[in-house]
Amino acid sequence: MKKTVVLALAAVALCLTSGAYGQQPPAAAGSAQQQCGPVNQPDNRVTFRLLAPKASAVTVRWGVQVDIGDPVTMTKGSDELWTATVGPLESELYGYTFNVDGIRMVDPCHAEVKRDGAKLESMLLIPGGIGDLYAVKDVPHGTLSQVWYLSPTAKLTRRMQVYTPPGYEDSSNTRYPVLYLLHGGGGDETEWNNQGRMSEILDNLIAQGKTKPMIVVMPNGHVTRTASLGFTVTSIPAPASALAMARGQAQLGTASFEETLVKDVIPYVEKHYRVLANKENRAIAGLSMGGGHTVNTTLANPTMFNYIGVFSMGVREMTADIDKKFVALKAANPRLYYVGCGTQDSLITSAKALVAELEKLGIGHTFRQTNHGHWWGAWRIYLSEFAPKLFQ
Amino acid sequence: MKKTVVLALAAVALCLTSGAYGQQPPAAAGSAQQQCGPVNQPDNRVTFRLLAPKASAVTVRWGVQVDIGDPVTMTKGSDELWTATVGPLESELYGYTFNVDGIRMVDPCHAEVKRDGAKLESMLLIPGGIGDLYAVKDVPHGTLSQVWYLSPTAKLTRRMQVYTPPGYEDSSNTRYPVLYLLHGGGGDETEWNNQGRMSEILDNLIAQGKTKPMIVVMPNGHVTRTASLGFTVTSIPAPASALAMARGQAQLGTASFEETLVKDVIPYVEKHYRVLANKENRAIAGLSMGGGHTVNTTLANPTMFNYIGVFSMGVREMTADIDKKFVALKAANPRLYYVGCGTQDSLITSAKALVAELEKLGIGHTFRQTNHGHWWGAWRIYLSEFAPKLFQ
Repeated sequence: MKKTVVLALAAVALCLTSGAYGQQPPAAAGSAQQQCGPVNQPDNRVTFRLLAPKASAVTVRWGVQVDIGDPVTMTKGSDELWTATVGPLESELYGYTFNVDGIRMVDPCHAEVKRDGAKLESMLLIPGGIGDLYAVKDVPHGTLSQVWYLSPTAKLTRRMQVYTPPGYEDSSNTRYPVLYLLHGGGGDETEWNNQGRMSEILDNLIAQGKTKPMIVVMPNGHVTRTASLGFTVTSIPAPASALAMARGQAQLGTASFEETLVKDVIPYVEKHYRVLANKENRAIAGLSMGGGHTVNTTLANPTMFNYIGVFSMGVREMTADIDKKFVALKAANPRLYYVGCGTQDSLITSAKALVAELEKLGIGHTFRQTNHGHWWGAWRIYLSEFAPKLFQ
Repeated sequence: MKKTVVLALAAVALCLTSGAYGQQPPAAAGSAQQQCGPVNQPDNRVTFRLLAPKASAVTVRWGVQVDIGDPVTMTKGSDELWTATVGPLESELYGYTFNVDGIRMVDPCHAEVKRDGAKLESMLLIPGGIGDLYAVKDVPHGTLSQVWYLSPTAKLTRRMQVYTPPGYEDSSNTRYPVLYLLHGGGGDETEWNNQGRMSEILDNLIAQGKTKPMIVVMPNGHVTRTASLGFTVTSIPAPASALAMARGQAQLGTASFEETLVKDVIPYVEKHYRVLANKENRAIAGLSMGGGHTVNTTLANPTMFNYIGVFSMGVREMTADIDKKFVALKAANPRLYYVGCGTQDSLITSAKALVAELEKLGIGHTFRQTNHGHWWGAWRIYLSEFAPKLFQ
C-alpha cells in the first residue's frame, strides 16, 4: 500500500510548492499532519488514525460496503491519537468512515473520497489483486466526458458521462461499439465512474487485450433530474418534480427512462460519436434500478441490443405480458444475457426468477453468483466479467 | 436558497427509489435525517446544523475562503442539535466546515463538497448575485472532458481537463479560439472546474452573449505528476519523484512546466481539437503558481499569446534578463495583459511590480484590484472579467 506514502509526500510537496508560488493549501493542524491518515503495515494490514483529543469513543467502519458489518473500536494512545489496525486486507477498493461520539465522518486527512448516493466515504485501494483492476495504471487511457444533451422526451437538458476508449481521438474514421451502462436508484450519471471505477476497469482490460475498445455511455437514470448532486440546473423547477415525487404524485425511474434512452440518448450518441450503430455493436447493462431499466428496455426493444447485462436485479413478478415479451426477445436471439447477483443480495430471488424464465424459454445466458450483497464490490466485478464478453 | 429544500427532497427521492428498485443509499441515522444539513432562512441567512450529542464544543467556519477568519460558535439545543445562524450572506459560492471538539469535518448531511488542495469543504451557493454566475443554469452547456495525453517533455502520460463550448459537438468544421487556464500550487487539473466553477462561468457568460465560445484547456501544473489526487498512476514511480522533491533533489512547477505546455499540451490540443491555431486566438491565464507559469511562458514565447491573464501573482524580482524579455514582449504587442490581485493578498507587491514594469515599458494592461486575499473568490471573479475580453 504505497499510496499512503505517496499521499504523505504529496502533502509535503504541496507545502513546498506553496512556499515557492503562493497559493497555500489549507493549513494542516500542526503535528496532526504527521499523525493522521491511514498507514500501511506489512501484509496488507492497515492502521486507521484519527487525532481526537476530547472524544470518548471512536470507531471505524471499513469494507467493500462501508455501512454494513460491525464498527471496529479504535484505541486512544497517550498522544491522543486514536488508532485501529485491521487486516490483512485482500486486494480491493474499500471505503471507510469514522464515527466520533456518534458522528459519522470521512477521514479529515485523506481527501480521496467516493460518494455513495448522498454520503461520502474515504477511499482505500489495496493493490496486488482485483484492486489493480481499479487502479490508474501506466496504460493508455480513454477520455471521460461530461456531456449535456437535449432530452425531448424528458423535456430537460440532461447530463451523461461518456467514455471514449484509448485511440478514439487519434483516429478520424474508426467506429466503435457502444455499451450503455446504467446506475442504481441511489446513484447518478457519475456513479459508474466514481464507485464503479469504470474508466480504470476498461482502460486496464483493454490494455490487457481482454476487452475490445468500446464507447461507454452512462446516462442519469432519474428522468426528472438534469444531473448529479450539485449539478442539477437550479433554474429549472426541479423542486416541483421532487415535491410531486415525495407526495407520490410523480414517479422517478422506470416510468419513462427506457423511452428517454431509446429516443434521446441513443440517437444523440449515434449522431455525435463514431459509433457502429447496429444491434451487433450495441450492449446494455445496469445494476439494481439500472438492471430494471435494462430488463425493461430490452423487452420493449428486443432487436436493439445484442448483449444484455443485469446486475443485482431480475424480474419481481412474472406476468403473461412479460412472458410474451421474453418470447419476442428469444426470437431476436441476443448473443449474451448475463445475470450477476450476490447470494447475500435480497434481490437474488428476482435474479433467479429472471434466470428461470431465460431457462424456460431456452434463451442462452450466463448466471454469475458471487458472495456479495447489494454492493459496489459486486458490480465492479460483474462489469469486469461482462465487458470482455462484448463484441467478440 | 432553495437548494437545501431540493437536497432534502432528493434524499426522500433516493429512499423512494431505493424501495422500488433495490440499491439503497446508505442508511441515514434515524431522525438525524431531518435534523442536519444547512437550512435557508429569510434574507439569505443560513442555519448550520449538526447533531452531536456528546460534543462539548462545536464551531463552524464558513466563507469564500473557509480557513481564515474566526470560527462561529454553535449552540446545543435541547434536542442535542448544534446550530448557528449566520448572515445575511451576500450571493457567493461559500465553503464551510465544522469543528467538533478539535476535529475538522465536512457536513455529514451535505454531500456537495469541493476540494481545496488536500482538504475537503462543504459547499454552499447563495444565489441572487455573483453566485448565479457559478450555478448550473438552464442554458446550453459545454462538455468537460478528462483527457490523457503523452507529455514527451515530462516523460509521462498526463491528464488535463478540456472544456469545449456549447455547439462544438454539433459542428464539424467550426474552429475555436483557446484559453489555457492554469491552477495554483495547491491545485491540480481539476481545480479550475471544481473550486473555480469554470464550466458554469463560461456556460453562463456565453449564454449571456458576453463571452465568445472558446475551448478552455486546464493542464496539471505539477510536471512530475500524472494527474490529480487519486488519479496518479500507481505503477509509475511517482513516490521517487515526490521523495526527491521532499528532499530538495527535484523541483516541481515552473522549472519545466512552460516547456511541457508549449511542446506537449498546445500541440496536442491543436492536433486533436478544431482550434484556431494562431496568436490572435490563443490566450493564457493562471492563478498564483499558474500566474507564474503564465508570466514565464509568455516571456519565453512572446509571439505565442495575444491575451495574458496573471491572477494573484506578479514578478518577485526584476532582473535585467526579465526586463529584456518584457521588451521583447512589448514588441510582440499582445492585445491584453490583465493583472488581477487582492489587496489583502501577500503577493500584491509582486503584482504591483509586474504592473510597474508594464507601465514602464508602455505595455497596455488592465490592473484589477479587489478586496480579496489569496482566495478562490478572487480568481472566479478575475476569470469572469477576463473571459469577456478575449478574442473580441
